[in-house]
Amino acid sequence: MRAEIITIGDELLIGQVINTNQAFIAERLTAAGVSVEKMTSVGDHPELILQALREAWATRDIVIVTGGLGPTHDDVTRSALCTLLETDLVADERVRERITLLLKARGMRWSEAAEHQTYVPRGMRIFVNPVGTAPAMVAEREGHRLIVLPGVPYEMRELLTGSIVPYLADHLEAPAIVHRTLRTTGIPESLLAQELGELDSLLEGARLAFLPSPRGVRLRITVHESTSAESRAKAERIEQRIRDRVGEYIYGVEEEELEEIVGALLRERSLTIAVAESCTGGLLADKFTNVSGSSRYFERGVIAYSNRSKTELLKVPPDLLRRHGAVSQEVAEAMAEGIRRMAGVDIGLSTTGIAGPGGGTPEKPVGLVWIAYADGASTISVHRRLGDDRLRIKDRASHAALELVRRRLMEPG
Amino acid sequence: MRAEIITIGDELLIGQVINTNQAFIAERLTAAGVSVEKMTSVGDHPELILQALREAWATRDIVIVTGGLGPTHDDVTRSALCTLLETDLVADERVRERITLLLKARGMRWSEAAEHQTYVPRGMRIFVNPVGTAPAMVAEREGHRLIVLPGVPYEMRELLTGSIVPYLADHLEAPAIVHRTLRTTGIPESLLAQELGELDSLLEGARLAFLPSPRGVRLRITVHESTSAESRAKAERIEQRIRDRVGEYIYGVEEEELEEIVGALLRERSLTIAVAESCTGGLLADKFTNVSGSSRYFERGVIAYSNRSKTELLKVPPDLLRRHGAVSQEVAEAMAEGIRRMAGVDIGLSTTGIAGPGGGTPEKPVGLVWIAYADGASTISVHRRLGDDRLRIKDRASHAALELVRRRLMEPG
Repeated sequence: MRAEIITIGDELLIGQVINTNQAFIAERLTAAGVSVEKMTSVGDHPELILQALREAWATRDIVIVTGGLGPTHDDVTRSALCTLLETDLVADERVRERITLLLKARGMRWSEAAEHQTYVPRGMRIFVNPVGTAPAMVAEREGHRLIVLPGVPYEMRELLTGSIVPYLADHLEAPAIVHRTLRTTGIPESLLAQELGELDSLLEGARLAFLPSPRGVRLRITVHESTSAESRAKAERIEQRIRDRVGEYIYGVEEEELEEIVGALLRERSLTIAVAESCTGGLLADKFTNVSGSSRYFERGVIAYSNRSKTELLKVPPDLLRRHGAVSQEVAEAMAEGIRRMAGVDIGLSTTGIAGPGGGTPEKPVGLVWIAYADGASTISVHRRLGDDRLRIKDRASHAALELVRRRLMEPG
Repeated sequence: MRAEIITIGDELLIGQVINTNQAFIAERLTAAGVSVEKMTSVGDHPELILQALREAWATRDIVIVTGGLGPTHDDVTRSALCTLLETDLVADERVRERITLLLKARGMRWSEAAEHQTYVPRGMRIFVNPVGTAPAMVAEREGHRLIVLPGVPYEMRELLTGSIVPYLADHLEAPAIVHRTLRTTGIPESLLAQELGELDSLLEGARLAFLPSPRGVRLRITVHESTSAESRAKAERIEQRIRDRVGEYIYGVEEEELEEIVGALLRERSLTIAVAESCTGGLLADKFTNVSGSSRYFERGVIAYSNRSKTELLKVPPDLLRRHGAVSQEVAEAMAEGIRRMAGVDIGLSTTGIAGPGGGTPEKPVGLVWIAYADGASTISVHRRLGDDRLRIKDRASHAALELVRRRLMEPG
């Protein structure tokens, strides 16, 4: 199965927006056993869109188109689709229902633009958009498939993973390619490679990709045997070998986020937690509360940015702040113990560091972060050097704090 | 001048790498007055590369190719170039000198791979790579230009801005295209289109793109007149007309973020702020503290997730919580006033809502959020319906809270 991805939008052609949709689609198609041969981007010009569609439709088994489906006047994709498929637009009842529901939920009235959006090329199969208005649409002709997705990234992602990938899985042969992703944190790529050691016998001919990101390195195993059962079995063997060697750094698989893993551990054990943040500035609480049902274990958070707030909200002794400074092991531990006591929870978690760009000194440079964990029985703390980019420091520090909780909860006894 | 950008590399086609080169080149070409009509990506396959080159070379004034020039075995671009230009490879003395120098500086010896890299298609103009080995190369034929750049991002950037853009400036007329982006929030795309009304007279032939995102719609004006002075003047006229019609929704231009705008307003006026969050769970504080220097005005934040924490940390009367529920105008206002008093700051800001997926009722559905602002003189509050996705509700509610502060601070008197 050979595919082409066509992304549409003037914003791409002037370089205002980086084409993340393209990479996301390519990754998912590859994982589904489809080989992406070409990716094309054109602006909102009817002739250029039609030309790109025609070329792709004539030469590939699967053509995925995204962008140019919004409610305003720059929507030209739909008419290009009609020309290509030699059909006209027809109002779709399910799309109308969805838009009605969405407008109602947002307290908005029906408009001409909404009416316009209910029209889809006649004969295309429709997948309703669970998070927006423009649906996904599929045309099938002589074994060729044309798949059209909205361009708003989160809508595209939702429809691709929720509707199109399952649709392709139903209609294509089961891919004998199996991917498995293991998510690590707290170990750099080079060290991870070293710990894994000799790869030939580990992999038995399969492939292993190291995918680094600011939060950690993902390991992607790709196995291609003659049947999917064989591929799955081999992937499991390889995963087990990798876990034997570097298991302590692996916190999850596939798309699992660390905050979900930690949340599940807290729920399982009926533990409650509260956080006291300085340098992470709310991001740690934000991660905790991104998880549905987190109100069961996340009791409160405090962003004690000023020294005064550290004293008032967390009862950090002013003397401790004076002697060791706000960014210190002592203050991190006092913050974790303080929030635990104030909130009356099982676990207190804290961060304090220098997010920069200002405020660094030779002894306490930008990027230095102290993280502490207190559970009444004991208080532990770690420090990290997390680079020199403010947003990255906040992100990595929050991740490291979550990882500290995970490791503590996973400890035997 | 119509251009096409061709990027080459298997890593793009499997979605392992996001194509940032493409956007960078597109942005620089656009700024140089070149109109990018199409962008194409293909893997390291000789036939697919040649086919993409042929199509582009036949139809565009400028073709920029990047990738596939590295020292490893996947270098197939060079031979495709020779086929396209009907020429052969020839060793280049300046490239040899450059590679010799670089290897010496890195303490490395001359190798077969290095030798291989000295060969370039005969007749192409060479721009030596100041930060790597592979040079930039240009072919000119009957007014068409083929420009080849290495794929390593920083080498590509260096050669593009240092050599190719100046080369194009010498050979092309001055750019007459001007872009201007206005960022709006608090108004959906369809309503924004309605408020802008009839576009033909507003735009005088220029183009306007609506770029929606969960936080708001960006409006991008594109003007193409015969001189850049004319284009700029017209873009300003159009911007003014747009501001006359929907100015209240515009919070910034180009890449400005709302939290930066609000931070600048607070600093200008020497005001301090503290936040009390329920449904946004730390994200509002996170946004505030993403801005460098925010510690000057951001004093503290409290994430009062439980009712108990609302009472303890913000002195919200338990009776108020019982009578109106945590998600209510009364509690939102008590939270804003509470955090203002507790923190001793000028402004208190609060959010309370139902982020879902559980917890909704017919009267208070998932997505309902109350936001309050208290400055001692008065307390104001707004409510919003923000869809049904937990993360998006958090994001939109934080954005709406920032926007409430911006609007309040911008009010006359």
